[in-house]
Amino acid sequence: MKEFHKINLLYDFYGSLLTERQQNFIELYYGEDLSLGEIAEQFDVTRQAVHDTLKRAEQILENYEEKLGLVGKFSQEYRSIEEALNFLQRYQAGQEPDGLDKSIEILQSILRNRQEF
Amino acid sequence: MKEFHKINLLYDFYGSLLTERQQNFIELYYGEDLSLGEIAEQFDVTRQAVHDTLKRAEQILENYEEKLGLVGKFSQEYRSIEEALNFLQRYQAGQEPDGLDKSIEILQSILRNRQEF
Repeated sequence: MKEFHKINLLYDFYGSLLTERQQNFIELYYGEDLSLGEIAEQFDVTRQAVHDTLKRAEQILENYEEKLGLVGKFSQEYRSIEEALNFLQRYQAGQEPDGLDKSIEILQSILRNRQEF
Repeated sequence: MKEFHKINLLYDFYGSLLTERQQNFIELYYGEDLSLGEIAEQFDVTRQAVHDTLKRAEQILENYEEKLGLVGKFSQEYRSIEEALNFLQRYQAGQEPDGLDKSIEILQSILRNRQEF
């Protein structure tokens, strides 16, 4: 399940750099949870061919992330935005008097990091 | 100046996909504002060669953006984070009673969009 999430994230960022066939297989296998056999049947190829195409596609996605690191960077940022939102909601509910200040600091830090990026 | 900003943004995202020479030239021309002639002298090539390498590198960066659209997506998000921060600061200063609610809405919308991305 962990691997599924990772590949889906990489695919969201870099998927359009894959061939159409690679995209099809990734979407069916990771997105719609079809088996290798089911995809093989649908495309009239061997199970091994589906496996190899998927492995190759995953490798390409991972190579792009290794070079660009955008998934890692923006996943970290996603967690910061969640944290800022959480502070605001706790502040609004009277549970965190510092929540407003903390949230402002987090958002300022996100914008600063982007400028340095 | 507008073009400089755009190329620098594209380079921040996709620069590591360029060759080392392309990266060097982009950094010197767009980052450090050297002229074509100055770069040509430094690398002992013609001014035309520098020009062609830069044009080719820009084309590659723009092709990646055309496929992936990440600069556009995250630039828009940057403006939303700025907006949310602005609302919080105005709320804190007593200038915008709705600022807290508006900011929460913006942050929720950013996180929702990312999940759909």
